Formats: sequence, structure tokens, C-alpha cells
Amino acid sequence: MTGYIKGMPQVSVKEKLVKYAEEVFRQRGFDGTSVQDITDAAGVPKGSFYNHFDSKQSLAAEIVRRYYQATDLSDLVASGAPLDRLRAHFLKQIKRTEQTGFAYGCLLGTFAAEVTTAGEKVKAAVHEGLASWTAAVAAVIAEAQARGEISSRYSPQDLATYMIDAFEGTALRIKVTGDPAILTHFLDITLSVLLL
Amino acid sequence: MTGYIKGMPQVSVKEKLVKYAEEVFRQRGFDGTSVQDITDAAGVPKGSFYNHFDSKQSLAAEIVRRYYQATDLSDLVASGAPLDRLRAHFLKQIKRTEQTGFAYGCLLGTFAAEVTTAGEKVKAAVHEGLASWTAAVAAVIAEAQARGEISSRYSPQDLATYMIDAFEGTALRIKVTGDPAILTHFLDITLSVLLL
Repeated sequence: MTGYIKGMPQVSVKEKLVKYAEEVFRQRGFDGTSVQDITDAAGVPKGSFYNHFDSKQSLAAEIVRRYYQATDLSDLVASGAPLDRLRAHFLKQIKRTEQTGFAYGCLLGTFAAEVTTAGEKVKAAVHEGLASWTAAVAAVIAEAQARGEISSRYSPQDLATYMIDAFEGTALRIKVTGDPAILTHFLDITLSVLLL
Repeated sequence: MTGYIKGMPQVSVKEKLVKYAEEVFRQRGFDGTSVQDITDAAGVPKGSFYNHFDSKQSLAAEIVRRYYQATDLSDLVASGAPLDRLRAHFLKQIKRTEQTGFAYGCLLGTFAAEVTTAGEKVKAAVHEGLASWTAAVAAVIAEAQARGEISSRYSPQDLATYMIDAFEGTALRIKVTGDPAILTHFLDITLSVLLL
């Protein structure tokens, strides 16, 4: 057992860069963040950055991929009533946004806003993140439609897109107003009106 | 009449800065735009910038104010059925976004995403822009509720907020996907499901 202490893994420079850059990007956006800001936050020499990433774009794309891969979809694939699972899932997303700071919004939304300058790698990663999240939500909406619990007038894909875009727009407004109460309205209106 | 030519007003340096900066900000965002980018686009000396604006923040706030003051609200205050007026209004917003480039989204949304670094003046201007737009949409929703054309389960303010946030989130996704068709779904779903 004692060997574990001696052998404890060091956090690599690369992992430090990924860990601290996420917070800096969230707070300052893509263009508002310099490589120097990231290496300062990570406490590593600026020169070490390029041993691990060929550009700020590549690191940002990596962070976006990890962000959506870390999104907890467990409620969506659980058993139980589809609308309850959607509620549980979005409550978790609201909690996640609260924990990282409502003032900084959703990381996917932040990068989405800056894809014109953040470049193709970041754009592709955000696209994939939105697409996979939308597909997971759409699958639950499809179940609800199959069970006759909500209208089938619109496709699961269209409803899931609308729902997620409304969430992103709500998170965006909160960056400006500082009032997270509208996320509760978002969820109530979505589940009792949009998915009717 | 000939005097008019001699007396034709020159476009002032300040107006040139405002005019060209809007396009640069739209395409590159707040942090992605430098004062030099703006003066280059306007074709004026860099030094002239500070004769008219004390900072990039002040110019950005001015542009946001002009942007929402230029928003065409005529359909909202026209006569006719409330839902038809909402449709006409949002079709105009979609057209406006198309004309300035779907790839660059809505200017309010672009600045909203960057308020953490763009500072308090920009934040206040975006806040005011979202609030005035939401109030104008809410007034029409209130009319529809008073006429019994849509449910009064949620307040006009909450429904207008949801609708505008869904629009902003949709415009944000289009920056990433490049597919503006979802704006049509946004409008159809909003008017036939959300406002039911």
C-alpha cells in the first residue's frame, strides 16, 4: 500500500493546461483568452504550451470535446417516464451551469458565439457537441411521442433542437441580466407547453 | 438646387467609425476586434478614434444601442391579429439576420456572449436592448391573452422571454451549423405550440 504514495501519478502539464484553460475560456471567451493567460492560470511555463497543443484553437477544441463528453446523460437513458427524465436531465444542466457560474453561461454557447474567429476545429467540436446532445434529447422525446404522451405534430429532432436552443438562449440572457430565475420558467414552459 | 451639392454633408469620422465597427464586431466579436481593425475598416487614422470614443467599450455600447433602436417594431404595434403581427415581426428579424449574414448571428446575442470581458457599458446596453424588445413582444402576447387567443397560464413577460431566448439560441446554433432552416421551425413551433 505504501508504494501508492511514492507512485502517485503527477498531473501532467497537458492535463493542467486542459483543466485551467476551461475556466479561463469560460470566463474570458476564446478571443479574450491568450496562451499566456492559460499558462499563467495553469502555473506552467508559456513555452511548454506548444509541446502539447499546436494552437489555442486545438486546445479549445479539446476542451469542447471533453465538456460534452462529460455531460451527464444518465437521466436521459434511465427508465421511467420520458418527461420526468427530461426534467431531471435539464435540472442537472442548470445545476452544472450554476456550479461553474451563471455569469459565464454554458461553455458550448460561449464557444458557439465565437466560432467565426475561433476557427474550424472549434466549430466542428461545438457542432458535434450540440448534435450529440440534441440526438440524446430527441430520443427521449421520440419515446414520449410513441407512448402518446406528447403531440407528434413536430419531429423529435425539431422539438429537441428548439428545447436546447431555448436553454442556450436563456443561459445567454442570464449572462446579461444576472437573474437565473428564468431557467425555472424555461423548464416549466418547455415541459408543460412546448412538449404537450 | 445646385447649392445642395456644394453643401452635401460629409460623413463624419464618428459616423464612419460607428458604421464600419458594427460590421467588424459582428464578424469578429468584441474581443476579436481591435481599435486598429475598426479604424482600418473605416479608413480613418487610428489616432482619430479617441477623439470620438474613450474606449472600444464605449463604441460597442453605442453600436448596441443603435442596433436595438433601429429594430423595426412596426408590426408589433400595428393593428390586426396579435399572432399574425408576431409572425410578421419575427420574419423581419430573420430577414435582418439573413441580410447581415446568418454566419454572424444576431448582434445582441454576439455581445451578450462576451459581456464578461466587454464590460459594464456593453452589458447595460445589451440588457436594455433585450428588455425593450421583450417588453414589445410581451405587449402583443398580452393582447392575444386578453382576446382569449392563447392560454394565460404563463405571463406575457415569461412567454416573450422564452420566445426571444429561443430565437437567440437558434441564431447561435446557426453560427455553428450554417443551416438557417431551423429558424422556420423556431417560428412555426413558437406560434403553433408555445403560444397556444
